[in-house]
Amino acid sequence: MNKQDKSTLVVFSGDLDKAMASFIIATGSAAMGNKVTMFFTFWGLNILRKEQYIPTKKGFMERMFEKMMPRGAGKLGISKMNFGGLGAKMMKYIMEKKNVATLPQLMELAKELDIEIIACAMSMDVLGLKEEELVDGIKYAGVATYLAEADQANLNLFI
Amino acid sequence: MNKQDKSTLVVFSGDLDKAMASFIIATGSAAMGNKVTMFFTFWGLNILRKEQYIPTKKGFMERMFEKMMPRGAGKLGISKMNFGGLGAKMMKYIMEKKNVATLPQLMELAKELDIEIIACAMSMDVLGLKEEELVDGIKYAGVATYLAEADQANLNLFI
Amino acid sequence: MNKQDKSTLVVFSGDLDKAMASFIIATGSAAMGNKVTMFFTFWGLNILRKEQYIPTKKGFMERMFEKMMPRGAGKLGISKMNFGGLGAKMMKYIMEKKNVATLPQLMELAKELDIEIIACAMSMDVLGLKEEELVDGIKYAGVATYLAEADQANLNLFI
Repeated sequence: MNKQDKSTLVVFSGDLDKAMASFIIATGSAAMGNKVTMFFTFWGLNILRKEQYIPTKKGFMERMFEKMMPRGAGKLGISKMNFGGLGAKMMKYIMEKKNVATLPQLMELAKELDIEIIACAMSMDVLGLKEEELVDGIKYAGVATYLAEADQANLNLFI
Repeated sequence: MNKQDKSTLVVFSGDLDKAMASFIIATGSAAMGNKVTMFFTFWGLNILRKEQYIPTKKGFMERMFEKMMPRGAGKLGISKMNFGGLGAKMMKYIMEKKNVATLPQLMELAKELDIEIIACAMSMDVLGLKEEELVDGIKYAGVATYLAEADQANLNLFI
Repeated sequence: MNKQDKSTLVVFSGDLDKAMASFIIATGSAAMGNKVTMFFTFWGLNILRKEQYIPTKKGFMERMFEKMMPRGAGKLGISKMNFGGLGAKMMKYIMEKKNVATLPQLMELAKELDIEIIACAMSMDVLGLKEEELVDGIKYAGVATYLAEADQANLNLFI
């Protein structure tokens, strides 16, 4: 496989607008025939959380992070003009009216296009997130796995 | 043309400091002989807005975004310590005193260096921005156009 | 030296979480045998400040920036849920409990791995930071030096 045929994205941000940009670039690249790897770390992990509450054993601090962070793609705020969630609602309303693919739809598309989704194991440990709290069909690995992919890829972005 | 000779930047942020970093890297790269493409998306589109008010037909939500978002390079805030615009004013004052090129000057330089400026058509649609509201001499295209350039480029950044 | 064997990171952000991500990627890449260059610019320069107060001659505006910006790796906030520093304290507490390397430890490791640390001379001038205020063993250079490295590198990120 040619170097031109691989892309990687580090998704550090958990904002709706940046998450959408990540998946639009990733699915676009995969649709052009590239092998795409997305590495979710820190706040980016919130994009991968299941929407329903999953009971887990956690310490006090981990429980606080769990409660304060948005649970999944439907609950994310936007990076500017969020106004306590109003901005995110406005943006989703407009996107629906204009028939722009929603974030859950883009994530579904990513799965169909065989995009590799990796959740950063170290960040999960720090934020206290457990595997059963994240969506199915993803991998768990560390920065070395990401770097091995990035070394072989032409397009590498940090979002 | 050699792969080493191309650069692309996705300008997602509409903050003054990040916009300056984008244009400093882009013009630096072009001055070294590279072909540079800048792809402006989401809040980054505000950098490209004309400063004067342009009358357009818009829906209510689009009008709200139009009013709340900064109109052009002269109105941007900074990403940290903005304090309602005071931080941006301080930074611009210091830059002028130290003879650092301003953002409008860097944008002029980008034009002279034949840097390709692309406004993301999908983001324009979502934010309700019309072509006549953006500066002249730019292109309008989608993520596929950006990805085709990025596939051929060595330096690809997301800002 | 092969192109696959070089990485560069622009560290624009001065947030603790993004600084940690930068150094985790940089030290990981260096540990895999790559030559790594980190270019610190704008708020990223705060990561490199010495913790103690260094007396310098400065103008009024420069003094204001000096006072308002965090002094070194131990004083940084996090990019989300910082709550006036409480979030950063929580994150550092958890990381210590989980035996995750701290930012100062990662910076020490970066030095041992011969990672090249460059402070952006132009940003230092704008923010009024002097060489004696930054940690020892780093270089001072402009965007051209960064771009020369990036042109030779395979992995180039903007954080």
